[in-house]
Amino acid sequence: MPSQVNSLKNLQYSILGFFTCIDKKGQVYDDLKYVWLQGRQVWMYCRLYRTMERFHKQEILQAAKAGGEFLRQFARVPSDSPTWKCAFCLTKDGKPVKIQRSIFSECFYIMAMDELSRVTGDKDMQAEAEQMMDHIIHWVRVDPSELGRTKLPGDEPMNSMAVPMMLLSLVQQLTEERDQDLVEKYRETGHWCVQKILQHIQRGGMAILENVSLEGAELNGCQGRLQNPGHALEAGWFLLQFCGTHGDESLQLAAISKFIEPQFQRGWDKEHGGFFYFLDVDGHCPTQLEWSMKLWWPHCEALIALLMAYNNTKKPTLLDRFTEVYEYTFSHFSDPENGEWFGYLTQEGKVALDFKGGPFKGFFHVPRCLYMCERILDGLLGDKN
Amino acid sequence: MPSQVNSLKNLQYSILGFFTCIDKKGQVYDDLKYVWLQGRQVWMYCRLYRTMERFHKQEILQAAKAGGEFLRQFARVPSDSPTWKCAFCLTKDGKPVKIQRSIFSECFYIMAMDELSRVTGDKDMQAEAEQMMDHIIHWVRVDPSELGRTKLPGDEPMNSMAVPMMLLSLVQQLTEERDQDLVEKYRETGHWCVQKILQHIQRGGMAILENVSLEGAELNGCQGRLQNPGHALEAGWFLLQFCGTHGDESLQLAAISKFIEPQFQRGWDKEHGGFFYFLDVDGHCPTQLEWSMKLWWPHCEALIALLMAYNNTKKPTLLDRFTEVYEYTFSHFSDPENGEWFGYLTQEGKVALDFKGGPFKGFFHVPRCLYMCERILDGLLGDKN
Repeated sequence: MPSQVNSLKNLQYSILGFFTCIDKKGQVYDDLKYVWLQGRQVWMYCRLYRTMERFHKQEILQAAKAGGEFLRQFARVPSDSPTWKCAFCLTKDGKPVKIQRSIFSECFYIMAMDELSRVTGDKDMQAEAEQMMDHIIHWVRVDPSELGRTKLPGDEPMNSMAVPMMLLSLVQQLTEERDQDLVEKYRETGHWCVQKILQHIQRGGMAILENVSLEGAELNGCQGRLQNPGHALEAGWFLLQFCGTHGDESLQLAAISKFIEPQFQRGWDKEHGGFFYFLDVDGHCPTQLEWSMKLWWPHCEALIALLMAYNNTKKPTLLDRFTEVYEYTFSHFSDPENGEWFGYLTQEGKVALDFKGGPFKGFFHVPRCLYMCERILDGLLGDKN
Repeated sequence: MPSQVNSLKNLQYSILGFFTCIDKKGQVYDDLKYVWLQGRQVWMYCRLYRTMERFHKQEILQAAKAGGEFLRQFARVPSDSPTWKCAFCLTKDGKPVKIQRSIFSECFYIMAMDELSRVTGDKDMQAEAEQMMDHIIHWVRVDPSELGRTKLPGDEPMNSMAVPMMLLSLVQQLTEERDQDLVEKYRETGHWCVQKILQHIQRGGMAILENVSLEGAELNGCQGRLQNPGHALEAGWFLLQFCGTHGDESLQLAAISKFIEPQFQRGWDKEHGGFFYFLDVDGHCPTQLEWSMKLWWPHCEALIALLMAYNNTKKPTLLDRFTEVYEYTFSHFSDPENGEWFGYLTQEGKVALDFKGGPFKGFFHVPRCLYMCERILDGLLGDKN
């Protein structure tokens, strides 16, 4: 194993506060709270507390409980209808600022509640997570009208890869080490998610497209041609993880050969290094202003995906890729001066936004990456030592 | 007058199609239609046709009529309630894809209809523009509930500078050379807009902030500290234009000394040239990923604002600033190879997105800038020659 890989095991996870904007030195400069970020953070605290001895500390548990308590008290928006919509964003004293017409705030609320219930043993909380999950499945698979989007003739429903990925990770979360009834209850939804993710393999297997039709056909225009290499890599390891519990060799092959291995060829910037954020499969200029920027999270997902794929196959090229991404990532994103990672670099690799926490960067992708990689490396090194 | 300034008079305006994504060579690569962009384009075609002899051409008139006809047939979304909401985005055959919970699609619909009615003499169209204007004034000043935003306790109504700016330019549009009754009808709204724009002068006159409270106080957090130098410059010339019809010396002074002159000191990138897109008044990192990019439209607005301010005052420093912005703009944004302008540069001035038309870049800021500057220069050169 390369020495860099060993060094990954010794990294510290810094614990950020719950507020949104945290500057490069760790000072809060905006006190809004984003439900989806706080949900992820509570989830991560609990996961670290519950499964890693060096994080089994009272201050981490207390922070997780406080964060969960705040979400439970304020995230669900009071309404006349029996809806379970969460706010997207709250003031620091818990007043809702904005509601999104999507499922993601609710999904990370569930992640937080389920994981917190595992630490505290709170059965009501677990039941609440399950109830909300059933609502989300209804919104995604049966009727999205409660989400509040006006049905418009030009707005054909589509399969955006984020939705089945999110739902699959919730199925994994809710059923992990739970009893067989619960596993059974969500089994079919899990398989449905896998099929919906596989629909994104397009162009005769040569591309992963972010948005396809409900039937799995390519869509017209920029939206249909959009690629997000980091997201494809994340989907790849989600599928590999699913294989881990469901043992499916052809799915493992698809995950590695369609979602993971080719992204290095398709999404890596050969001139400056790093993964592009967005690409157009036909080579047009994406319309997202940040398309050529290098973001931290695709690199986190790449590290997990490549190491997991190596772990499954022991193919040396996968470890070489992992090492290459590792070297770019740790020399560009991590901040040796003040700790934590920067999130946003220019195409050339210069820090473009120097905050450590923002409306889309919380305590999630970095610690999840380090956590996942450390566990895989423990297994690999255990094998060798 | 510097020779560069003379060269501005000889530029051609290229006429883009109505589709959204147009690559660097002029090829369409996405066929969605954005109502706000198409409204602006129809407005610009008509304005050029109506007021500049070299654009008084049948093909421009025909294009404007076709664009206006499409908007009239498809932009307003059918609804059970007596609402005037327009779609934000339509398929190429006119099916609505998305509705925004803001006023801007409707505003540019009005711009198009009013200007087109001036060319065609269609009184019904003019009346329709006026009716929709009355709806928008109701939404902005009385009751926004028809816009479809859920009222949330943490979402305090605020004064975003774009709203009074938009409304002021509509008042100017609808009343220009119209009869006294119409001028009277919108007089008070015009003055209200000016007051609302002036509320954005903050920090003892040392900053223009994009968002303030309804009472004109600074707001908390990133949103409250946000600055957009190009938008402040645009507001500056809107105010100067208002002074032109209402003769108000103290307002002229405020426009120049608060909105226009200081932006060069505050918003110009001393290292690489060009105006930053967003800044935080306290020097924190803005959370908008494009904050340090150089966008075409702030530079267009700067050229108009500086030349108009020079025209009003004859202060040589304003012409020097204009020349400096002109040199940066024409050497970085305009494409000598394929014509038209690029829209999005990195902080260092490299083209970051090479399309000529996209979801936020249509046929508007560039031709309006050239049109306005040409008219001001005609006046200035007429004085001198």
